[in-house]
Amino acid sequence: VSESIHEHHTKPPGQLQLERLVFFSDAVFAIAITLLVLEIKLPELPGRVTDADVGRALLHVAPKIVGFIVSFLVIAAYWEGHHRMFALIERVDRGLMWRNLLLLLTVSFSPFPTALFSEYPSLALPLRFYAISLAAVGVCSAMVWRYATQHLLVDDADAREVRRLRNRTFATPLVCLFAMIVSTFSLPIARVLLILIPVAVGVGDRLAGRRR
Amino acid sequence: VSESIHEHHTKPPGQLQLERLVFFSDAVFAIAITLLVLEIKLPELPGRVTDADVGRALLHVAPKIVGFIVSFLVIAAYWEGHHRMFALIERVDRGLMWRNLLLLLTVSFSPFPTALFSEYPSLALPLRFYAISLAAVGVCSAMVWRYATQHLLVDDADAREVRRLRNRTFATPLVCLFAMIVSTFSLPIARVLLILIPVAVGVGDRLAGRRR
Amino acid sequence: VSESIHEHHTKPPGQLQLERLVFFSDAVFAIAITLLVLEIKLPELPGRVTDADVGRALLHVAPKIVGFIVSFLVIAAYWEGHHRMFALIERVDRGLMWRNLLLLLTVSFSPFPTALFSEYPSLALPLRFYAISLAAVGVCSAMVWRYATQHLLVDDADAREVRRLRNRTFATPLVCLFAMIVSTFSLPIARVLLILIPVAVGVGDRLAGRRR
Amino acid sequence: VSESIHEHHTKPPGQLQLERLVFFSDAVFAIAITLLVLEIKLPELPGRVTDADVGRALLHVAPKIVGFIVSFLVIAAYWEGHHRMFALIERVDRGLMWRNLLLLLTVSFSPFPTALFSEYPSLALPLRFYAISLAAVGVCSAMVWRYATQHLLVDDADAREVRRLRNRTFATPLVCLFAMIVSTFSLPIARVLLILIPVAVGVGDRLAGRRR
Repeated sequence: VSESIHEHHTKPPGQLQLERLVFFSDAVFAIAITLLVLEIKLPELPGRVTDADVGRALLHVAPKIVGFIVSFLVIAAYWEGHHRMFALIERVDRGLMWRNLLLLLTVSFSPFPTALFSEYPSLALPLRFYAISLAAVGVCSAMVWRYATQHLLVDDADAREVRRLRNRTFATPLVCLFAMIVSTFSLPIARVLLILIPVAVGVGDRLAGRRR
Repeated sequence: VSESIHEHHTKPPGQLQLERLVFFSDAVFAIAITLLVLEIKLPELPGRVTDADVGRALLHVAPKIVGFIVSFLVIAAYWEGHHRMFALIERVDRGLMWRNLLLLLTVSFSPFPTALFSEYPSLALPLRFYAISLAAVGVCSAMVWRYATQHLLVDDADAREVRRLRNRTFATPLVCLFAMIVSTFSLPIARVLLILIPVAVGVGDRLAGRRR
Repeated sequence: VSESIHEHHTKPPGQLQLERLVFFSDAVFAIAITLLVLEIKLPELPGRVTDADVGRALLHVAPKIVGFIVSFLVIAAYWEGHHRMFALIERVDRGLMWRNLLLLLTVSFSPFPTALFSEYPSLALPLRFYAISLAAVGVCSAMVWRYATQHLLVDDADAREVRRLRNRTFATPLVCLFAMIVSTFSLPIARVLLILIPVAVGVGDRLAGRRR
Repeated sequence: VSESIHEHHTKPPGQLQLERLVFFSDAVFAIAITLLVLEIKLPELPGRVTDADVGRALLHVAPKIVGFIVSFLVIAAYWEGHHRMFALIERVDRGLMWRNLLLLLTVSFSPFPTALFSEYPSLALPLRFYAISLAAVGVCSAMVWRYATQHLLVDDADAREVRRLRNRTFATPLVCLFAMIVSTFSLPIARVLLILIPVAVGVGDRLAGRRR
């Protein structure tokens, strides 16, 4: 017996909601991650433009390119976490639905703080705004996962993966919090911390993978 | 026996159309909801920019951020309603197809009135334009649902859910109508009404859920 | 036995390509149709803005709103045609793949001529550029369908639908061609012709539906 | 036995990850390819605009239109390659996941170099930046395919297709490298080389297809 994505009448409603929810989430993640590039724009160059002018302009937007790459990787990491969570989640109720929509709200908001931080990389406020907004995605992920595990929506056969995912949702918010504290005495170090988040997630995943 | 998303030849055409229709609708909702963030832009800051400048600029765009959040939640609520309707709809004909495309037209238009209302939150016309456009999404949802239930396209096993969804499609347009009437003597109250729509939908859903 | 969207190893490659092709096409149609709204922008209003200013500005962008609605409906009609074609297409080869990608190229280009025509609705060149670009989508649709029917990729059980779809792909290009000829002596009539395309498609479909 | 796109609990986790990965990749490709059109914008035309003004402005943006078409076709070709790779890939592990996300990073970055090259088609630096970024997509594709084939993630029944896909991933980067070398003594020839990439891919595919 087969159950396909839209074969509505033969499926328990809870599972159907799950399918469209996952689909919709994937689309929002994909769009938010791809919109980030729209923030990279060369300034208008006046008069006869030479290669040297374009070179200077490219150097000028280099922080935006770095911001694009970091945000892309951070959101990609959140997507990968979302992906692994919903591989274990077996049904959806209203509570999970709205927590997940809140998560998507923070994801689709992220191009704005990314643009702000990339525009003014040497100021404290944009850095903190960026750190808070990245942390918010993580906090919402944690809420989704906490709700799912507590309301028995999850296939807990793989208890280690359940725990690992819980820890993972806290990793990025903690680095962001730490970066915000550090930003009160050294902006450059705080900046490096934020830029290193994708690296940290990668290393963490690799360690977790080894321990498996 | 299997029916997968694109296994065209083994499926009755009506159901196939349904599948791609739902998929396409999800994509349009996801894109419209994510494009909303593009309207949030800091004004160009002249000269040497300080944290204080950025702070003032952020306060200046705060209404746009609120507008983004409200519109995101309202469209998310419409999506959730669409989702529940199509969980019961069993096949699609031309009438349903075009009513649903009209619904998607109103959804994909919504970033414009959101931007207008967020840009001029203290004026009457942008508020009314925004209220009308949100109401239009609801009216189209009601048309889709009315057509589907009257043309026997719906699995009416769950008569309570059928009724609940009908009532739900009217909720947001009614609040919008009310906000427009209120706007003739108090803009601030009308504004609060519009901002509270997502809260109202949430409370309504919770009450409806309890009664189940 | 089940064949789901990504169950790669159990499916003939031709059918698999078909699945992702349909999916990818849906996504491009959905994005192009939703991007159209980004072209509607109020001009910057200087000084203290009143409701009267916003009203005038809205009147000013009214042609853009009309352009958005017309283009949305035309592309939606093309999508609906694509949808019905691929309901009958049973497998994909390289020729169909690239003809379909060419179709998507014309679809994703369409926001530009829409913007141009909406910006300068009273000039001849933008109107013709718009008409040509809409016609190009139709010509590519016709190429896809012609190739599919001639290379035996189509389930021709429903010979009437096969014929109906062929005729349909020519309808919009013919109206566009006619509008271009008319534009040499009357721009307003040519404009009305273009605006009426969605209506014409709707009436044509209704007639075709009745004859069934 | 059924395996549908989201029927999580009955599927081996590796395959599930594969499904969402393919889906997410399709969405990112579709969005990046469609965003390219946003870079085509007419300059603001002052005063009373005539058809002649619009004609001159269209000629002025002609390089952007060419850039759009070339980039659309190049990314479409990469998508088609991705598509054929994942038709053979049978499961996903962390290494493949992240290599694929890196590929998506280069894909979603591509609208920026496209815009730069289309804005300044007669300069050397934008051409090289564009060539490097297109080559990067190809190098990441090669990494994905190399990893997949070496880690036994691929159904190697079709050894010829495996080899053909490997060769294909190198084709575009090689043309880009060649165009960069050529750009040191003749920009026009380098430009033609880049513009011909889609043609070269098409011819290569046709030859490969014939040899099959």
